[in-house]
Amino acid sequence: MRATLIHGPGDIRVEDVPDPEVSLPTDALVRVTAACVCGSDLWPYRGIADVDEPRRIGHEFVGVVEEVGDEVRTLRPGDFVVAPFLLSDNTCVHCRNGMHTSCEHGTWWGGTDEAGLPVDAGQGEAVRVPLADGTLVAAGRDLPDGPLLASLLTLSDVMGTGHHAARSAGVGPGTTVAVVGDGAVGLCGVLAARRLGAERIVAMSRHEDRAALARDFGATDVVAERGPDGVARVEDLLGGIGADAVLECVGTKESMDQAIAAARPGGRVGYVGVPAGGAELPIRTLFGRNVTVGGGVAPVRAYLEELLADTLSGAIDPGRVFDLVLPLEKAPDAYAAMDERRSIKTMLRP
Amino acid sequence: MRATLIHGPGDIRVEDVPDPEVSLPTDALVRVTAACVCGSDLWPYRGIADVDEPRRIGHEFVGVVEEVGDEVRTLRPGDFVVAPFLLSDNTCVHCRNGMHTSCEHGTWWGGTDEAGLPVDAGQGEAVRVPLADGTLVAAGRDLPDGPLLASLLTLSDVMGTGHHAARSAGVGPGTTVAVVGDGAVGLCGVLAARRLGAERIVAMSRHEDRAALARDFGATDVVAERGPDGVARVEDLLGGIGADAVLECVGTKESMDQAIAAARPGGRVGYVGVPAGGAELPIRTLFGRNVTVGGGVAPVRAYLEELLADTLSGAIDPGRVFDLVLPLEKAPDAYAAMDERRSIKTMLRP
Repeated sequence: MRATLIHGPGDIRVEDVPDPEVSLPTDALVRVTAACVCGSDLWPYRGIADVDEPRRIGHEFVGVVEEVGDEVRTLRPGDFVVAPFLLSDNTCVHCRNGMHTSCEHGTWWGGTDEAGLPVDAGQGEAVRVPLADGTLVAAGRDLPDGPLLASLLTLSDVMGTGHHAARSAGVGPGTTVAVVGDGAVGLCGVLAARRLGAERIVAMSRHEDRAALARDFGATDVVAERGPDGVARVEDLLGGIGADAVLECVGTKESMDQAIAAARPGGRVGYVGVPAGGAELPIRTLFGRNVTVGGGVAPVRAYLEELLADTLSGAIDPGRVFDLVLPLEKAPDAYAAMDERRSIKTMLRP
Repeated sequence: MRATLIHGPGDIRVEDVPDPEVSLPTDALVRVTAACVCGSDLWPYRGIADVDEPRRIGHEFVGVVEEVGDEVRTLRPGDFVVAPFLLSDNTCVHCRNGMHTSCEHGTWWGGTDEAGLPVDAGQGEAVRVPLADGTLVAAGRDLPDGPLLASLLTLSDVMGTGHHAARSAGVGPGTTVAVVGDGAVGLCGVLAARRLGAERIVAMSRHEDRAALARDFGATDVVAERGPDGVARVEDLLGGIGADAVLECVGTKESMDQAIAAARPGGRVGYVGVPAGGAELPIRTLFGRNVTVGGGVAPVRAYLEELLADTLSGAIDPGRVFDLVLPLEKAPDAYAAMDERRSIKTMLRP
């Protein structure tokens, strides 16, 4: 089959790889309907994360179950499934705590499973899915297309990640919210905050197309300024004190500093951007203002059922973050479009 | 009157100072019944915080209202009052958010009020209290003594601070808890966790007298080991994964590292120890394990009414942290006893 590999910075190739097959009784074989490129895929693409040798890439996909192993109980061929960006058994103590990202038996797409077998990555024609019962969530028997397909695909990462930022920041009915980052995760964070009942949502964005989508997703205000000016605008808009909850959806020192400064005393920052650079969290600043910082690698599997229900009902339409769809063979163009910020989020169709 | 001043590292003196008086219509004059030495008073005593010139010291006291200004509404002469360790108006937006430590008009004992007048510190015979209605909480008309006096005195800082650690760590019914630090705040944190319904409370202590008090306060287990060994013991005791909630009640890099490591994936650290040294919070460690860090300068005023009710009823007896009572004139001995860890908490009686 065909699949995407990264060979080095800026070097994405679609190549022939071995066809996957059910190898373990807990495996499922999934034919990929759609995959996409993640902001974190850009770290190795930009040379910020090392690439020692060519490796498979991609961790967001949806597809159709083609075959299951003998021990798979919750899935059967023909099911349309959403794959979260990490694999988990959904039964260990961490999964029961809703922390599937710390699963005792979990692994990642493109990694190795507990049997020592390589795990396919998501940007390809098909995927062998270990721990299939724990990892995959079925979304019906019909093959979705168009906006629904796009929205279901966001549940594999960006919508669940935006939701994790909102939950980690304590968003609930009546909360005032600021969102730092206008990428797909930040935009989904706006949508998640609206879904959780936030009263005011200030999106921080300098790009009118992204700001417009943020407004559609529920942002009551948009602030184009950054840094101290942006923080001052957020304070002006939110009672002169800043936000109850700030969603940090970038991962740089600058964005985290902005997020912390935009939180009111006693407020909470929920962060989901993979921390880049060497900056740690400024404890004295946090201590003096009682600002809480929570978040991390989003356990999107924990949120999948509830977000799936709202997606299938049409209550949320996170798929609008996709503004470019390319065939799998054009994966290099997808990376370039994301890297150059010409695309908020790019879908790949095998 | 007599009051305590710090002249430099290790140099505590009790001296004659001007008698305080009601200067503003919102002032109260309080005759101090009991005061005490705080762990944070030891920072300048140990030379870790600078002392540029002799200054008044002490921020924990209880006493009797002797006189009030014309605009004071909630207090009258003869009231026994608890003074939180910071002054606040209890009406501004931050106070309404329960963040009295960020009060728009607040100040600190030994500082300066909004009128530019010096504010007395707590280790003296009497105190002029600006913002009296907002700052002080009346605890009846009887003059307490013995264990009740001691418990009421803890409400000015250590009990409210331990409670803030527990609240910031998300302690509630059924929570598993680890407490780092066996000083007065850590011990009060154990008591606060029990009061909030924690199911298991692991106190980390190497001192048998403190461990015994921790057990009396509700610790179900005591771990004497520190660092990685201590963390391993906490994990062993708590389902192999660590604590839902960790109370960090010291303020050093070592204690924070221990607290973060003792939290289970998805767990929360509530910290109240004034951060010492230059270490920031390790964001990548927190990110990977989804450990939340919250806390800061404890808004003890926000908790005073509820903790006062439980203290007066005898439901909690935090005053047991006092193991030494000295006359005010012996303040230098009190500092030495605390510094050398001969005393958990020392009371000063004017």
